[in-house]
Formats: sequence, C-alpha cells, structure tokens
Amino acid sequence: MRTQVAIIGGGPAGLLLGQLLHLAGIETVILERQSRDHVEGRIRAGVLEQGTVDLLVEAGVGSRLKAEGLVHTGFDICIDGARHRIDLEHLTGGKTVTVYGQTEVTKDLIAARLAQDAPLVFEAANVALHDIDTDRPRVTYEKDGVTHTVECAAIAGCDGFHGVSRKSIPEGVLRTYERVYPFGWLGILADVPPVSHELIYATHPVGFALASMRSETRSRYYIQCPLETDVADWPDERLWEALKTRFGEAAGQAMRTGPSIEKSVAPLRSFVAEPMRHGRLFLAGDAAHIVPPTGAKGLNLAAADVRILSWALIDLFKGGSTAGIDGYSAACLARVWKVQRFSWWFSTQLHRFDNEPEFERRVHRAELEYLMESESAQKTLAENYVGLPFVDPRTAA
Amino acid sequence: MRTQVAIIGGGPAGLLLGQLLHLAGIETVILERQSRDHVEGRIRAGVLEQGTVDLLVEAGVGSRLKAEGLVHTGFDICIDGARHRIDLEHLTGGKTVTVYGQTEVTKDLIAARLAQDAPLVFEAANVALHDIDTDRPRVTYEKDGVTHTVECAAIAGCDGFHGVSRKSIPEGVLRTYERVYPFGWLGILADVPPVSHELIYATHPVGFALASMRSETRSRYYIQCPLETDVADWPDERLWEALKTRFGEAAGQAMRTGPSIEKSVAPLRSFVAEPMRHGRLFLAGDAAHIVPPTGAKGLNLAAADVRILSWALIDLFKGGSTAGIDGYSAACLARVWKVQRFSWWFSTQLHRFDNEPEFERRVHRAELEYLMESESAQKTLAENYVGLPFVDPRTAA
Repeated sequence: MRTQVAIIGGGPAGLLLGQLLHLAGIETVILERQSRDHVEGRIRAGVLEQGTVDLLVEAGVGSRLKAEGLVHTGFDICIDGARHRIDLEHLTGGKTVTVYGQTEVTKDLIAARLAQDAPLVFEAANVALHDIDTDRPRVTYEKDGVTHTVECAAIAGCDGFHGVSRKSIPEGVLRTYERVYPFGWLGILADVPPVSHELIYATHPVGFALASMRSETRSRYYIQCPLETDVADWPDERLWEALKTRFGEAAGQAMRTGPSIEKSVAPLRSFVAEPMRHGRLFLAGDAAHIVPPTGAKGLNLAAADVRILSWALIDLFKGGSTAGIDGYSAACLARVWKVQRFSWWFSTQLHRFDNEPEFERRVHRAELEYLMESESAQKTLAENYVGLPFVDPRTAA
Repeated sequence: MRTQVAIIGGGPAGLLLGQLLHLAGIETVILERQSRDHVEGRIRAGVLEQGTVDLLVEAGVGSRLKAEGLVHTGFDICIDGARHRIDLEHLTGGKTVTVYGQTEVTKDLIAARLAQDAPLVFEAANVALHDIDTDRPRVTYEKDGVTHTVECAAIAGCDGFHGVSRKSIPEGVLRTYERVYPFGWLGILADVPPVSHELIYATHPVGFALASMRSETRSRYYIQCPLETDVADWPDERLWEALKTRFGEAAGQAMRTGPSIEKSVAPLRSFVAEPMRHGRLFLAGDAAHIVPPTGAKGLNLAAADVRILSWALIDLFKGGSTAGIDGYSAACLARVWKVQRFSWWFSTQLHRFDNEPEFERRVHRAELEYLMESESAQKTLAENYVGLPFVDPRTAA
C-alpha cells in the first residue's frame, strides 16, 4: 500500500490529523491497535480550549460539538469551602471553553473518516516503523494474520505515551524530562446532574477535588488520593463523603450523589521528549508529552501539535518546501513547555503536598489569595486556560 | 521618661514611624543602638516603590527625594544576553519606581526628626523590653553609663532581624517560616556611570546578575555567587569580567568599569515571624520578616508595615479604639506573604539553582519566555514591582 502520510494511532490526535490532511488533499492511512468499540469507549478528558473547538469546526467535525457541547464562560476555584469565580469570557475578551467528551470527539472524527472512505485500520497488530531517517519510510503491521506494508513519505506518531512511535527513535536521540507527582486522582463518573453548571476546582487542607461533568445529566468528580490507593477501598458512599468535605459549605451540600458508572485512580505526571521529530517521523500528542490533568490540557495540547503538523505537512506536500517540517519540533515545543508550565503551576497551586516545607506552603496560599485579588493574575490564568495561540512551524525553524 | 510610643531602632522604619506619628500629634522616643554616623553610612537597597515614595512625600520628607531621586519607568530583563523591557509605567497605568538610596532616606528622616527636637537617642546600649503583655510596657537602656527607663503605652520593634524586639516575645508565641537560598550576591559599588539609565536583571547559564545604581555617577552591580565566596578572591577585574559575561552582548560591552568603593557578599533568605504583635509590642520591617533582595522589597515592605502601624496607633491614641492594633498583624501579614511570594518567585526565575531537576529548569525557562510574550503576565510582574496596595488594619481584625 502507498500513501503520503502514515498515521500511527486512531485516537483523536491521529484522526484529527487525518481529517485536516484530507481537507488539504493529502492521502493518509491511519493504523489503530485497538478495535473501534474500544477506541469509542475510552473515557478521557472533556474540556476543549477555544482554539481546539475552532479547529474542530474548521475541520468540518464541529456540528454535533456545537449542538451538544456545553459552553463554559468561566469556572470556580473553591478555597477551603469559599467559591471564587474566574470569568474566562470577561478576562480573555470573549473566549470560552467547551465541555464535550473526548469520546464524542473521537466518534465524530471516526464518522467523518468513514464517510470519506479513507483508510482507517482498526486492530492493526505489531505495528513497526522502518527507515524513518530516510525520505521513504515504511510501516508494517499485521491484520487478521496477514502482514501489510505502508510505504509513505512521512509518519505521524499519534499513538500515545506507550505507543511504538517514540520507541522507534534510535537510542540517544531523544532527551526526556519528567516529573512524577506524589499523589493521584481518584475519579468517579455518575449519572447525576452536576453540582454546578461549570467546573469547580477545590483546594482544601485534606487535598484537591474537582467537580466536572460530561453533560447536564452526567457528572465527573475527582479527589486527590495517595498513589497506592485501591479503588476497592472506596465504595461510592465514602467517595461522596470525601467530595462533600472538600467542597465544603459552598458546594458540598448541593451535590447530588448516585451510583458510579466508572471509578478509577490515575497518577499525575509531567513528561516531555524532545525533539518531536526524527527524520520523517513526527511525534504528536501523548507520544511526545504528558501533562497532569489539572486544567485539562492533554487533548488540547495534542490538537495544537496536530494543527502545527498539518501546516508542516501541507507545506511539504503542497508547497514543496521542508521549512514547515524543519520547524515542526521547535514550534510545538515552544508551546508545549508553556503548557507544561501552566499544568505544573495549576497542579502545584491546588494540591496538598505532604512534605512541602511550611514556607512554600504559605507562599502557595499567598499566591491563591493574590490571584483572587488581582485582575492581571486572573487574566494570566484565563489566557492559559482557554489556550495559548498556535505557532506557525514555517517561522520556527 | 514617659512617652506614648517607644520605637526600638533608628533605621528608616523606626524613623518613618516616628515621623508619621509626630504629624498625627503622637509622642515617640526612638532608641538606636548605633551612632548617627554608622546609621547614616549603612549601604542598603535603593529602589523605592510608588507607594513608598508617596508615603515619604506625605510624611513631609520628600523634597530631596523628589529633587534627586531617579524616576524609573521600567526595567530590563536580560535573558542570555538579549534584553527585554518591562514598561512599568505603561503596564500599571502610570506608576513608577524611584532610585534613591536607603542611606539618603535615613538622612532625610534624621534631619526631620532633629528639626522637630523629638527624642532620638543614638548609642542606646542594652535596650530591654518589659511588661509587653500589659498596657503599660517599659523600655530600659543605657547611655553613657546611665540606665534610663521609657514608660509608654506601645512599643514598635523596628530594630531589624538581629534586634532585641522579636527576641523579647516569650518562647512558643511566634511561628517562624524560613527559606535559605543556596547562593549569595557579590556586590560592588563604584563611581562609574551606570551601563543603563534603568535596572537590568540578567539571567544567564552561569548565574544571575543585576545592574543597578545609586545615582547617575554611582553604579551598583551584583552577581550570584556561591555562599562560601570570599571577597578577597574577587579583585575588581575578575568581578567586572564576570559581569560582562552575564550581561552579554546586550550590555556587557557598554559597561564602564572602575575601582570599587565597596564590595561584599550577602546571603539570600526568606523569613517570616507571625504574629507581628504580642501584647503592646508591634514588630515592623526586618524585625518580623526578611526577603531576598531580588526586586528590592525589604525597605518597601518595612515602609508598608510602618504605614499600617501608624494607622493602628493613631486609631488607638486618637480614636480611642483598639480595632487598629487588633488588626495590625493580619493586615501586615496578608501583604507580607504576597510580597514574600513575589520575591521568592522573582528570585527563582532569575537565579541558577545547581541541583534543580531538569524538568523544573525548563519550566522556569518557559515561564520567562511566556512572560516576554504575555501582557497580562507582565502586568502581574509590574503591579508587584511598583508595590501592592496597603491594607487598612481596622478592617483586617
């Protein structure tokens, strides 16, 4: 099989890249290790930046998002039970975020892909990348016991942190940076109306909590928990009680409880591998970087990478120039590190660190108090929360 | 001797408090351990916030400051040799800072005090505080071999970090918070014109540097240095070379060098003791807190404490209410912790920390890059740099 771009991974990053390149008249093949049911069933984040929403609309997959997504003009920070509103729309001059599950984005992109009759291979096993440091790389995979080869001019590695793409880069090329946080998030999904029509980030002496949602009838809550937490130790009642404590008088009383649909523990990690390009392999999204979930930057950061990669590949295939692909890694990383900074900062502000020196603990408290008083500090938070601008790779080389 | 307020310490904090209370018709006695020559000769910081300048003018000691002080409408941050301007005046809607040595502020305040014929005792030895948890505290001291007693209704502890005031509070009352930085500042004072008419804060892989000044003909430079640095190892030529390296092409070439007048190493420390009141003893300035010198907040923080303490004492002696003194500590500390946060943040941004994990190092670099691109981030820096508003103690109890 021949194509222009082989895309490894059929999650939202790979599918969106395929969609953007399709609109530009560039051929792609998408290879996904899992089944379609599995991909469409994965529960992930649900808050889309203004720029991600605009990009999905521009990509022609925004109609259900616009109809069903919940536009949030702000969010609350709850400090020891007292709520403070961050008015994103006012602070950013009109920008908002939209709650629309990553699962729904994925479904919309798969539907668009299938409607185009463009190659999307589920359950592609033993994917392997070859000759990535040449202009004619290849990808092999197995499907139903048969080995296939995709010949192409570029490979997009959109297969996540554990995917094969990053691991295909020769040893010694990548430099990695990592921070592991000394706690995780215990999450619960339940079909009860959200306690508030927007998100509430709560900081409390016991630890962080988040009230989020997937729709007007489906709530998503999280509490900070020790890394070794076993979900079996947290029957629904115990988790609801812990949430009520952390949201305090401001929101705890009004919280509607109900049986969990899903309950899980996730660690918090910051990770960056650079550069994001090796030869004709381009890493995008979780394949290159992980952010802690505070502020919901993971999917949005992947969408930004994909936007930048689409520009770079259009420049290569339509413009006949390598300026875009040469600037791809620098353009992404300039933005990636700023988003890493924001996710690290927001996580540090809101969580309890058991071994934090008392001076730093008080400084962090002072920073939250300052944030509640200073419009410029709130604007800084807001402009990061709704999303920093994308960087054109043709100017970043 | 009887008075209303005994002020321990004849540095700028104690002298300014005496001046503000004098204008309000409240009697004070100021006791200073050192000689007048010593006090007037101490070399300290030189950048006054907008609010400190306004306060000195309001206190009637602003005429020479207004005539000789250098108004700075901004400063530069030099990142690896490239200069970026922070336009304070534009970012804050018209506020500025003024370069005027702490030594000069002290001289002006002493001159005003002496012109009022108000008690100001230099070389007061063995100062001791008594009965501070009653409404009739006393201060004893020795002068020329004779023991004196000052009976009063309140004592202001303006005698610095090493002074007797904080140490007079019974054990177990104060809670202290401290952070010691793993480096110091090596400073040089020289009679050469400054390299720039405003300050330049430089961050460089080797370490931090600062180009400051006392006047248009007297420069003050600093470099980050190991804590164990011996000034004897740093002849002027070596120090000038190190400065040129850290300021790089942007400013290093233009730097005028000359023989040092003064050269010294100072450690960097963050320290807070709370509460800032015990009974009728009120701590102000360095007696209660120390900030690292980055951003020049020490004297300004002391001036803010003194402004708040003057309101509190006027409320007590003229208003017959204890609301002001009851709110003093909380009103000061709300602001102190925000200034501690700023000084810690600005220090952390600009210095090299040898043992910093690579992830954090990159995050800090990303924060500087973001700062250079974001007007709201620059506004946040600027509003802290020109000084946060004072807090009225009568509303803080």
